[in-house]
This record gives sequence, structure tokens and C-alpha cells, in this order.
Amino acid sequence: MFSLLDIIGTMAFAMSGALTAMNKRLDPFGVFIIAFVTAVGGGTVRDVLIGRTPVGWMLDLKYVYVIILGFILSVIFRKKFDKLRTSLFLFDTIGLGVFTLIGLERGIITGLHPIICIALGTMTACFGGVTRDILCNEIPVIFRREIYATICILGGIVFFALKKLNLNDDILYLVTCVVIILVRLMAVKYKWYLPALEHKR
Amino acid sequence: MFSLLDIIGTMAFAMSGALTAMNKRLDPFGVFIIAFVTAVGGGTVRDVLIGRTPVGWMLDLKYVYVIILGFILSVIFRKKFDKLRTSLFLFDTIGLGVFTLIGLERGIITGLHPIICIALGTMTACFGGVTRDILCNEIPVIFRREIYATICILGGIVFFALKKLNLNDDILYLVTCVVIILVRLMAVKYKWYLPALEHKR
Amino acid sequence: MFSLLDIIGTMAFAMSGALTAMNKRLDPFGVFIIAFVTAVGGGTVRDVLIGRTPVGWMLDLKYVYVIILGFILSVIFRKKFDKLRTSLFLFDTIGLGVFTLIGLERGIITGLHPIICIALGTMTACFGGVTRDILCNEIPVIFRREIYATICILGGIVFFALKKLNLNDDILYLVTCVVIILVRLMAVKYKWYLPALEHKR
Repeated sequence: MFSLLDIIGTMAFAMSGALTAMNKRLDPFGVFIIAFVTAVGGGTVRDVLIGRTPVGWMLDLKYVYVIILGFILSVIFRKKFDKLRTSLFLFDTIGLGVFTLIGLERGIITGLHPIICIALGTMTACFGGVTRDILCNEIPVIFRREIYATICILGGIVFFALKKLNLNDDILYLVTCVVIILVRLMAVKYKWYLPALEHKR
Repeated sequence: MFSLLDIIGTMAFAMSGALTAMNKRLDPFGVFIIAFVTAVGGGTVRDVLIGRTPVGWMLDLKYVYVIILGFILSVIFRKKFDKLRTSLFLFDTIGLGVFTLIGLERGIITGLHPIICIALGTMTACFGGVTRDILCNEIPVIFRREIYATICILGGIVFFALKKLNLNDDILYLVTCVVIILVRLMAVKYKWYLPALEHKR
Repeated sequence: MFSLLDIIGTMAFAMSGALTAMNKRLDPFGVFIIAFVTAVGGGTVRDVLIGRTPVGWMLDLKYVYVIILGFILSVIFRKKFDKLRTSLFLFDTIGLGVFTLIGLERGIITGLHPIICIALGTMTACFGGVTRDILCNEIPVIFRREIYATICILGGIVFFALKKLNLNDDILYLVTCVVIILVRLMAVKYKWYLPALEHKR
């Protein structure tokens, strides 16, 4: 099931990348690359920083196929994205939860400190979107408006707090994932956001 | 001969980087860095992703010297770039073919799937230019106008199709390289391009 | 003492990142990430390129704590940055010297050619700022106005010139660091800069 969620998340991220790229009027190759980078960018940066190479998607082609499918669906249904907005948002939120967990797990396997594991979880979930925005010549959206990365950090803290209780691993993963997804849904519904920090009056 | 073409490609890429940077009115250090990154960026990203470190140009100083030379030539002849346009375009096209082959070869040596090898070939040929455009604060040109990366992908497909025929390696490399160069020349001559994908009416 | 200077440099770089991000009106998470990336970005790129992974800050949490502290101080004192400008500039200059030395040392330990060591020193000192500017959607400032990277290169040349004299290591490090710091102070005081290279009249 975890693996299915991983695929849903990858596809949602790929489609969010394709959508942004089509908004910028890129050509099909550009759209595909942005979709690809949005989907695997976070995990790729994580793998490179911890020295797990060749990076994940080079060894498990499942991701490549899912992204190709997400790209094709995005192109076909590009006129209907408005109607799909809610589903896409839900999938993206699932991706947020699952990718954070994958990053946390990878950090633990590598034997890193919990703070670094939380950084890796956040990176896995968020850096694909950051790379997408840089390639599209925008200041990354997660630095400006949305509570997004903050939710991943919160999820990581919940994860390690629950881990201290010696919970069963399945429950630990499920609860963390559900917390991330619920907080994201509430953050969007109730328009929670972090205020901009200004230093000039 | 392959090695000579590699040097020609590296120099062409360095000069294309220097030219872009001078257009942006950067200072000499900025121009040099952009030239460097354009020339070795693709191979560097490839090496980092497959875990081949220290990356290539750190172990083989040939590239550093060629880039320094390309930088100096670009600065000296900067007023005459218009007249050199055709030669530069030819060199750049040679670079496209050779760098794609080097990436393909590196993927095969690392034991990766043909799809990933084609991705590595395309990356080696194209990501230097992508990095150049990001550093110069532009949406990468290969995502917008030119059929460029698509030709590398095509070259990769030709390569693996011919490889199935058990051709001699030299012929395999030569044909792939010639296909990439010819298609690029025709694409520019006949103004082939990929249409932008729009998703709003 | 070297270690103390390292911490001062890290904090100065983190604060320079936070300042830039607040100028762009980013939210607290965005400000923190830019502070983090500015402080450790140079060393991270260096470590990834030479294959020293997991990268430095993942194994030595000291840097994480210093950056968190720098971030908090930046937020608290954000209205008083103008008055702190001189101190911040001094700290940043210390960082420039120390980070260059750390990069040079790392290159020597990895057994690389002096030219590559100088590149690594320059990268360690400068690429945090480059990444900061890219994330904030600006052409990196060191490519445009300031003599900054050029001073690191000069420092590297001085380092290897002195090394030939078989000086004591402590003296070698001290002199290189002082040269970098002094030249930077003079460059700013006397407004030394590299002219933009133009190729159109």
C-alpha cells in the first residue's frame, strides 16, 4: 500500500510540474523535463547528499514509467485541469506525506541524527517543487505563501516523538502520514500561512 | 579522433557560455564561471548522479585548460562573434553529438538500463546549457524554442537500435554521432521546432 | 581558533542569507532555508563533487545549530541591520578567508591538482552566495559587481606559492587567510572592481 501511495505521489508531482511548465508555454520536451524533475528532484538531491548513487530512479524504472504516464495524461487533459484541481490537490497532499516518510526512513537507514532525518524528509517532499520553480524562473512558491515545508518538519517531529514510544512501525508510519495529510488539508481550508518577515519598515 | 571532437565540443560550449554571460554584462570572473559551467555542467551532473566522484574534470585537467583557452578567445574576439556565428554553431553541434555519446557510454559502463543511458546522454549534452541559463536568470532555452534535447534522445534510440545489430563499436559511435549532427543541422535549416503546449484557451 | 573562525563565518553567511531573503519578503521557512543554503551551500557542492558523502553538515550538527542561531538573531534584529552592517561585513570577510582555506585543505586531502584545489576553495567560499541569489531569482551578485571570487583565487595562489617554501602549516594558513581578508577590505574601501565585459558596441 505504501508503494501504491508512492506511485500516486509521484504521478501527482509529475502532473503539478507539467502544469506549471505548460503555464510557462514550454515545449513538450521542456514540459516533460519539468514534470520529471518535480517528481524525482527531492529524492535525487537527498540521494546525492547522502551518497546513495546511482540515485533511486536510475535503478528502479517504475518512477520513469509513472512520470511518462503523468506527462501524457497532463498533456491530454490539459484543458480540463480546472475540474481536476481537487483530485490533484489531494494526490499532491498524499505525495507530501509519503515522500516525507521516505526521506525520514532513508536518513535513519543511513544512521543520521533525527534533525538531519527531518531535513531529509522535508527535502524529499519539497525540493522537487523548488527545482521546478527555479527552472521556471520563479522564486520557489514554498518560500513565499504556502505552509508546506513546515508541515513536513512537523510530521518529522511527530514521527520521532512517536518512535520514542516504541510503537509498531506500521502504526508509526501511518500516523505520521495521516498527520501530515490532515494538517495540510486544514492549512489550505482555513488559509493558515506564515507571515512574510520584513526588515525594512 | 573522438578525443579531438570532445575538445572541440568543450571549447564550443565554453564559448557559448562566455557569449551568453557577456550579453548579460557580467564581469570577467562571472564570464569565466558561466563558460566553465556550460562546458562541464552536463558531465558534472551526470557524474554526481551516478556517483562517479571526484567528477571528471577534477581528474583530467585537459578540460580546464581548454575552457581557459575558450574563455580567453571569447574575450579577445568578442566584437567579432557575429562573423564567427556559423563556425561556433558547427562546433556546438559537434559537441552535442560527442557529449551525447559520452553520456550513453558512461551509462552502459555503470550498468544502467538503456532508458537511463539515453537520459544520461541527453543530460551530458544539454544540462551545461540549462545551468548556464539558470545562472543568467533565464528560463532554459532548450525548454522553449530549439529542438535540441529531443535530438539527443533520438540519437540515443538510434544508438541502441544499431547496438542490437551487433555492429562494430566504431561504426556504432560514428553513425550515432553523424545522425545527431545531421538532424541538428536540418532542424535549424528547416526551422523544425516543437510547438508550445498551452493548457488555457 | 580556526574552528571558532569557521563558526563566525558560518553565522555571518547565514545572516547574509536571511537578510537577502527578508528583503524578498519570504516567509520564515523560506528565510531559514536561504540562510541554511547560503551558509553550507559552498561546502555542500564541494563535498558532492569530490564524493565526500554524507556531506559535512549532516555529520557535524554544530553547523546546524549555528545557522539556527544566526537565523533567530537575524529575525530578532532585522530592524537594526543597518547599524550592524560593518560588523556583518567583517564577519562575512572572515568567512571568505576561512572557507577558502577549508576548501583548499579538502582538495589537498583528496589528492587533487593545485588548480582544482583552488577551484574547490573558491567554490566553498562563494557558492553559498551563488545559490542564495539563484533561489532569490537574481543573477548571482559575485558575477556582476564585487571582486569576491577573484580574491579567493588570489588567496589560493598565495597558498600554493608559500607552500613551496615549506613553511610551517599554521603560518601558511594564517598568512593566506590574512591576505584574503586584507585584500577584501581594501577592495571594498578603494572600490576595486572588475569591469563588465561587453561584446556589442
